Amino acid sequence: MMIAIAYLGPPGTYSELAAETYARWRNLSEYRLCPFPSITKAIQATANQSADICVAPVENSIGGSVAATLDTLWQTDTLQIQHALVLPIHHALVSRADSLDQIKTVYSHPQALAQCQNWLEQSLPDAQLTAINSTTEGLQYLPDQPTAATISSLRAAQLHNLPVLAHPINDWPDNCTRFWMLSPRASERGSHTSIAFGLPTNTPGALLKPLQLFATQNINMSRIESRPTKRLLGDYLFFIDIEASLDSPQTQAALQLLRSCTETLKCFGSYDLIQAEALNRE
Amino acid sequence: MMIAIAYLGPPGTYSELAAETYARWRNLSEYRLCPFPSITKAIQATANQSADICVAPVENSIGGSVAATLDTLWQTDTLQIQHALVLPIHHALVSRADSLDQIKTVYSHPQALAQCQNWLEQSLPDAQLTAINSTTEGLQYLPDQPTAATISSLRAAQLHNLPVLAHPINDWPDNCTRFWMLSPRASERGSHTSIAFGLPTNTPGALLKPLQLFATQNINMSRIESRPTKRLLGDYLFFIDIEASLDSPQTQAALQLLRSCTETLKCFGSYDLIQAEALNRE
Repeated sequence: MMIAIAYLGPPGTYSELAAETYARWRNLSEYRLCPFPSITKAIQATANQSADICVAPVENSIGGSVAATLDTLWQTDTLQIQHALVLPIHHALVSRADSLDQIKTVYSHPQALAQCQNWLEQSLPDAQLTAINSTTEGLQYLPDQPTAATISSLRAAQLHNLPVLAHPINDWPDNCTRFWMLSPRASERGSHTSIAFGLPTNTPGALLKPLQLFATQNINMSRIESRPTKRLLGDYLFFIDIEASLDSPQTQAALQLLRSCTETLKCFGSYDLIQAEALNRE
Repeated sequence: MMIAIAYLGPPGTYSELAAETYARWRNLSEYRLCPFPSITKAIQATANQSADICVAPVENSIGGSVAATLDTLWQTDTLQIQHALVLPIHHALVSRADSLDQIKTVYSHPQALAQCQNWLEQSLPDAQLTAINSTTEGLQYLPDQPTAATISSLRAAQLHNLPVLAHPINDWPDNCTRFWMLSPRASERGSHTSIAFGLPTNTPGALLKPLQLFATQNINMSRIESRPTKRLLGDYLFFIDIEASLDSPQTQAALQLLRSCTETLKCFGSYDLIQAEALNRE
């Protein structure tokens, strides 16, 4: 059966690389990669069953959370996390310039620009940094603009047959991005569980109770992320990852008590983590 | 004495509006607004004393936290919050097109595009959305591109003498942004205090203890935000706002105990909140 995988395109993005890695890991023989112009549209297409699964970035070790993924997941209400995948990110400076001192403009996604901030300040202190929608969109400008560069993946440079002037240029060598594979199917049950909830507003210490419930059950919380509810400044949703399966009695006990001290509670399923680095080395 | 106020430029941004509002609130007779190309550069210039005070956006009720502000504040290490200011945000669609159906491209800052997402999907479903560095940068393209539009403030449209096609276009009427006024002076002591800390890694329930310390002292936490330490995926700094003055015995007691259960603890001072809406109505 042909599996349609939605991702933030165009081809050559890190999301595409994550989608390819996932397809290889699952030994999919027939699959089709479906690029979308935004993360929100890729996730919505999967919720509407125009695609079978969506590969969505969740957080990067430098840039932090990807708000569009958390916000859209909360809104769509039907998707579950099937797997998480951690992909190492190695940025390249792609340009037709002969040397760095000819470069006047650098295009890239705001997260990629942020991840190379120190390198850019030292190597291209006078270049203008221009934020665009993806790490690959800027490649189309390069043939006509010999003083322009993009921050992209090596794969994107190869796809467009464009030269790489420097690589890797990310400030932190351990730069990696975690992706979630989202689909409307029930999650496959693994060692990590993700939930999100709102709290009754203006209650002092309201967040303490949910965290205590997990601690009492000896469940480690590996991440907490707040997102605005959008109703009011200072009113938040909390996205929490725990290191426990949804099927464990401890998780079931914590979730049952959690319902009584939260306003809206959503569970995005439990899933295992795929380490792409180990996979690519094999 | 001439006060130099650093902000994310160019003129016409919401940061400039916040800076103007703040100068009026403080009855500054002599001040100079200093635009910078990024939030990071505006904050750093203030830390280096090239400016006296910086007006930095911290969070928006729709888009959430402004990562550049939190990350740069943590790194600079010398700045204190003098005041917080909440500014209502009303976006306008600025364009030389005669009607909406002529518009093919919409330029704006990613946060502004996100804040008008539903309006854009309903009113301009086929327009290409292009992320740029600020809400005002795109105004320069409009004279030559009659099929382009930007999402900007009314003030920016007036400054550039450009027509407004629709206003307000933000999806949520209560859209507002909180700004911090940062300077190297000791904070003026008010009813809100902001701190940040790292935790010993991989300790189950490590975040619970800091939150319990505040609850024990009957101090309400109004916000918690996590940011990556950048060393390792899954390793975070926590930025916390509490509703208590730094001078209160309760806050002092909590902070003293906090030192023993956190890795690095930074205090950004305590300050009062200015409601710009009330101020602009006067």
